[in-house]
Amino acid sequence: MLNDLFWIVPIASILALVFAYGFFKSLMKESEGTETMIKIAKHVREGAMAYLKQQYKVVAIVFAVLTALFALMAFTGFQNGFVWFAFLTGGFFSGLAGFFGMKTATYASARAAHAASKSLNKGLQVAFRSGAVMGLVVVGLALLDIALWFLVLDIMIPESDPGHKLVVITTTMLTFGMGASTQALFARVGGGIYTKAADVGADLVGKVEAGIPEDDPRNPATIADNVGDNVGDVAGMGADLYESYAGSILATAALGAAAFMHEGALQFKAVLAPMLIGAVGTILSIIGIYAVRTKEGASQKELLGALGKGVDLSSILIIILSWVILNALGIPNVWGLWGSIVIGLLTGWLIGKETEYFTSEAYKPTKGIAESAETGPATVIISGIGTGMLSTAFPVLTIVIGTILAYLTASGFVMVNYAEGLYGIGIAAVGMLSTLGITLATDAYGPIADNAGGNAEMSGLGEEVRKRTDALDSLGNTTAATGKGFAIGSAALTALALLASYIEELKIGLHRLPEKAAAFEQAIGKTLDHANLADFMDYYNVTLMNPKVLMGMFIGSMMAFMFCGLTMQAVGRAAQAMVEEVRRQFREMKGIMTGETEPDYASCVAISTKGAQKEMMIPSLLAIAAPIAVGLIFGVAGVMGLLTGGLAAGFVLAVFMANSGGAWDNAKKYIEAGAHGGKGSDAHKAAVTGDTVGDPFKDTSGPSLNILIKLMSMVAIVMAGATVAFSLL
Amino acid sequence: MLNDLFWIVPIASILALVFAYGFFKSLMKESEGTETMIKIAKHVREGAMAYLKQQYKVVAIVFAVLTALFALMAFTGFQNGFVWFAFLTGGFFSGLAGFFGMKTATYASARAAHAASKSLNKGLQVAFRSGAVMGLVVVGLALLDIALWFLVLDIMIPESDPGHKLVVITTTMLTFGMGASTQALFARVGGGIYTKAADVGADLVGKVEAGIPEDDPRNPATIADNVGDNVGDVAGMGADLYESYAGSILATAALGAAAFMHEGALQFKAVLAPMLIGAVGTILSIIGIYAVRTKEGASQKELLGALGKGVDLSSILIIILSWVILNALGIPNVWGLWGSIVIGLLTGWLIGKETEYFTSEAYKPTKGIAESAETGPATVIISGIGTGMLSTAFPVLTIVIGTILAYLTASGFVMVNYAEGLYGIGIAAVGMLSTLGITLATDAYGPIADNAGGNAEMSGLGEEVRKRTDALDSLGNTTAATGKGFAIGSAALTALALLASYIEELKIGLHRLPEKAAAFEQAIGKTLDHANLADFMDYYNVTLMNPKVLMGMFIGSMMAFMFCGLTMQAVGRAAQAMVEEVRRQFREMKGIMTGETEPDYASCVAISTKGAQKEMMIPSLLAIAAPIAVGLIFGVAGVMGLLTGGLAAGFVLAVFMANSGGAWDNAKKYIEAGAHGGKGSDAHKAAVTGDTVGDPFKDTSGPSLNILIKLMSMVAIVMAGATVAFSLL
Repeated sequence: MLNDLFWIVPIASILALVFAYGFFKSLMKESEGTETMIKIAKHVREGAMAYLKQQYKVVAIVFAVLTALFALMAFTGFQNGFVWFAFLTGGFFSGLAGFFGMKTATYASARAAHAASKSLNKGLQVAFRSGAVMGLVVVGLALLDIALWFLVLDIMIPESDPGHKLVVITTTMLTFGMGASTQALFARVGGGIYTKAADVGADLVGKVEAGIPEDDPRNPATIADNVGDNVGDVAGMGADLYESYAGSILATAALGAAAFMHEGALQFKAVLAPMLIGAVGTILSIIGIYAVRTKEGASQKELLGALGKGVDLSSILIIILSWVILNALGIPNVWGLWGSIVIGLLTGWLIGKETEYFTSEAYKPTKGIAESAETGPATVIISGIGTGMLSTAFPVLTIVIGTILAYLTASGFVMVNYAEGLYGIGIAAVGMLSTLGITLATDAYGPIADNAGGNAEMSGLGEEVRKRTDALDSLGNTTAATGKGFAIGSAALTALALLASYIEELKIGLHRLPEKAAAFEQAIGKTLDHANLADFMDYYNVTLMNPKVLMGMFIGSMMAFMFCGLTMQAVGRAAQAMVEEVRRQFREMKGIMTGETEPDYASCVAISTKGAQKEMMIPSLLAIAAPIAVGLIFGVAGVMGLLTGGLAAGFVLAVFMANSGGAWDNAKKYIEAGAHGGKGSDAHKAAVTGDTVGDPFKDTSGPSLNILIKLMSMVAIVMAGATVAFSLL
Repeated sequence: MLNDLFWIVPIASILALVFAYGFFKSLMKESEGTETMIKIAKHVREGAMAYLKQQYKVVAIVFAVLTALFALMAFTGFQNGFVWFAFLTGGFFSGLAGFFGMKTATYASARAAHAASKSLNKGLQVAFRSGAVMGLVVVGLALLDIALWFLVLDIMIPESDPGHKLVVITTTMLTFGMGASTQALFARVGGGIYTKAADVGADLVGKVEAGIPEDDPRNPATIADNVGDNVGDVAGMGADLYESYAGSILATAALGAAAFMHEGALQFKAVLAPMLIGAVGTILSIIGIYAVRTKEGASQKELLGALGKGVDLSSILIIILSWVILNALGIPNVWGLWGSIVIGLLTGWLIGKETEYFTSEAYKPTKGIAESAETGPATVIISGIGTGMLSTAFPVLTIVIGTILAYLTASGFVMVNYAEGLYGIGIAAVGMLSTLGITLATDAYGPIADNAGGNAEMSGLGEEVRKRTDALDSLGNTTAATGKGFAIGSAALTALALLASYIEELKIGLHRLPEKAAAFEQAIGKTLDHANLADFMDYYNVTLMNPKVLMGMFIGSMMAFMFCGLTMQAVGRAAQAMVEEVRRQFREMKGIMTGETEPDYASCVAISTKGAQKEMMIPSLLAIAAPIAVGLIFGVAGVMGLLTGGLAAGFVLAVFMANSGGAWDNAKKYIEAGAHGGKGSDAHKAAVTGDTVGDPFKDTSGPSLNILIKLMSMVAIVMAGATVAFSLL
């Protein structure tokens, strides 16, 4: 059945991993600098690794329980025997991507600081290439997992009715998406709580009370803060984007298999298309990474231009090559699907620009927040929340227009061609993420530069070096804004595609329940295999007048808020414990402030680790339990309400939290650069309060929502058979 | 056609208005106290009246434009000729209810302060009876409008096909709901911005910077602050609840007319039932108001008990009498509908209790926020937002369970009996609000007590009197929590009922478009009159796989956030202007702080008035424009997505904002009462920041969302014909 083009997928994946290894090797050849720098980097690395080990232990238990559940479901005939294993590998590879990325980052910080002590450009190269390791590992592992599973299932799953085999293969592979999502949620939530508890704690006592600068070695929480950047912003983000990337490809493949089930060879081409776009995009990302070069003594704007050049090059090439791919595959509606890909890329780019507008100190909204700092912390918070909420209008309208256009072009402008149109939405998500290898590199390099700055500060490398790492860090903030746009935008599109996959999984679930299948076939007057999305909507009454749908929507919307509430509170509690510990050390160890005594860094690391471990369980488990519970009570209609309600509210809430947080951060930086009285003024103090509130907004709750949205869909998909069999109402 | 029982409705309405007049007269007989007290009350009264006049002028322009639009639609055949006039009367009566309530409140403040100088009990009686004027005026005017319109339309609209006439009457009457909603939104948003700009401004400079107590006459913003209580918490709330009350009755009547269209006499009974429950509840409210009596020297707990006794008595009596009403009407499914009423009452009560738990300083959540004040304002904000978001889980689950149960009992436990089930949800909303006369009295009395306190402080009435008014005020906070539960809960249920009314209006819209109607009839194979909700869902494809529905949901969810963002920013901007003005006065008029110079109160009043007028336009107009725009682009499916998405996200967002705001307020009070260092401590300062942020949360953005949810539905209903005729996709 395999097409020769398929082999591009494993080849691209191996290329990505080989180049990642190469970048890592050349990173390790760089000097780590002075003894102090080496010592501090080791502290941070050990803390981060210890945390990750601890987290994986906890997650392993969750995976063991869920795997046992899936094995039981396979045993009782509700699922095929590959599901539990696919689930495990998804989690494993996602964790691995985070692990490799973090390992590289912790090796890179001192090296980047040392390189920055030579020149700004040297620093950029080391930090960016280290970020590239992460980017390439994520896409490489995802494509590897996809290719391997596809090959295995192609051999193992028997041919049955025409078209049926690919549907089973692709929906089984979605389970590996659930594994990745589950692992990613724990990584994002746990890492997010860790990093923000440390960050908030360090800032509140260090900056505000003691008046010492960020990353000052006298601050007992400073090592924990730097560990947090690694476990949250690197390992957490790596697992997150691994999941987005794999999820969008898998969901689209499943949609393709379903939409073109009765169209012979076209079906396989539709399954292959998203994988190929990802694979070619990965190769282009490698090319783009090499295009990031600057001359000595480049200004910050030139540096940003250099990064942008790499991303733009990859994006333009993928626009051209995706047209070639679609033609090579011989898909009939080339222009339509190509249109969806281009729309996806444009949508992601636009959301990134909008994010930048609302969060960068170069524009009016953030300047307005900075101005409101003159009247104290309360008005900073009010205007920050107001700006963030208002800002949601633009990404939402962008996604709405992008989605409708991607749907229309893919469906040949026929509104009722659901299957083709939804496939187009999926392809748009794949297009948006196709160059993830390089966009993630520009994103992951931010926390590396941040840590390099921390290392430089703690090692006393001097003002000049710190300035350079700050410049690199601030560059990272801009690329991070774009990165967040892609993460949120692709989450929305992927979740829409997963909705349709849910219906396909229902079909497979019904296949296993002869009585229910017979009732269904009688009601719709077609065989199950020929049933389309509309038939399922009809039979399960998934309309907006069905109270089960409406109640599902309420619960979905509430899940997004409750999830954020739990993670916000977790950060608040852990940060409070951190503040008390730091205050205690300052109080009891008089030598800290004079520099005579080294603070007890380890106790702060322990507090963050413990807090994150304890607090990540409830929100994460709720996300898994909600679709199961709603399914068992309200059935298919309730689940679809839950997923759409969660998506609509969760998407907007995620944008709000990310943008408010980003804007507060930059409003503070704007004041620190001299506006409204500059550092040390009352306005600055007020702005620091805003930034502190924004920390869990933008780095814990907000980004976790992206995963929540998709994880709920994934769980629903995997549990679809049980929902059909057992629902109460 | 009229049934003798109908006459209970106008009788109850007149009774309510007569008793309101009586309470008002006896209030006016009370002394207003010293000359200073009279002068201050006059200042506040004039400021409030001037604001209201200004606001009504602006709203009049909006009404003129919309009325012209409706007249045009009537002329071109898209609507009947009563719609524009019904719209006008709805707005007029809603405004009137707010006006009477506010007039009473501004006359009551000095009188309540004077009465409180005699005894706590005297103070309670004056304040509560003044609140009762508002409660009774609201329900009296609503029932009057309903009864009058019903009588007029019964005469004017010709008999046509059996059952058709009542459908036309009830859907036409819904337009008066839209008038009430439009007026209410402006009142809530404008009043909310006014009151919080003044409050935040007064607190930030007065309490935090100058260190003078609340309502200190030296604070230039203090009169504006007291005016704000009247225009926001009294006039705004009055218009809001007038709209909730009328809306729930009208929506349920429309559902009844539709659900039982082909069942002869039963149809009229179903239309009459919600009106009768409201009418009887009003009479019971009057009885309940008289039951609020306390002995001299009662403790605060006893006072709360006295208020509670009145409410409980009315509620228990309505449970009994609604059973009697349903039997007297001779409705077949008495037990089922009675079940829905009881469930509605219980749901409202439970949400009130949950609100109390999450916002009262007697319980863990608010104590936790107070504790987090020890580590500064940032952790107060983080834990307040976390708590508020988390708290949404309980009201959502309560509404979900209540709705499903109300639906099931009314539909005879048959899930697919949509029309009957939805009628049950409407009846539950009517049940929840049936005793609004007295619950609103206990709610409206809060701001009156608050103003009495302000008057006492400014007139220098001494510590003892201020203590008594504070006790009354704090009592008001508890009843306000319950009141908010009813307002939010009933908004959700009413909005659900309005969804179904939208479909009915579509039916009428199709009647006016012969070609579209023919296409519809052919597609569903039934005549239009026999089409049911499911047929419309089918024909317009209102399923969750239709991208138009999904995009509508995204936009609906975004509308809730954007609306809050705009109102939050409005408060922020207006408050900043206020802060600058107060700072200017303190700076330039040295005599203020020493008490030698009277501050320029009028300039602060003018800033709030101008700010509110300017800032209320955009959010309010967007709320009206969104359903029209979505309808014209995405058609019926998009509109239903918009309404449900807006409802699901808006409800949860409203609960979050109300609860965070309430909890911050009480956490501050808890600290002021001595916890965590008490007044003047750093923890207190941090808590004041929380309270200040919470002000627009709980009194501007949060409560306005209740109206937004319903107004969008009302607009969609009134514009249904145009949507069917002109939609693009």
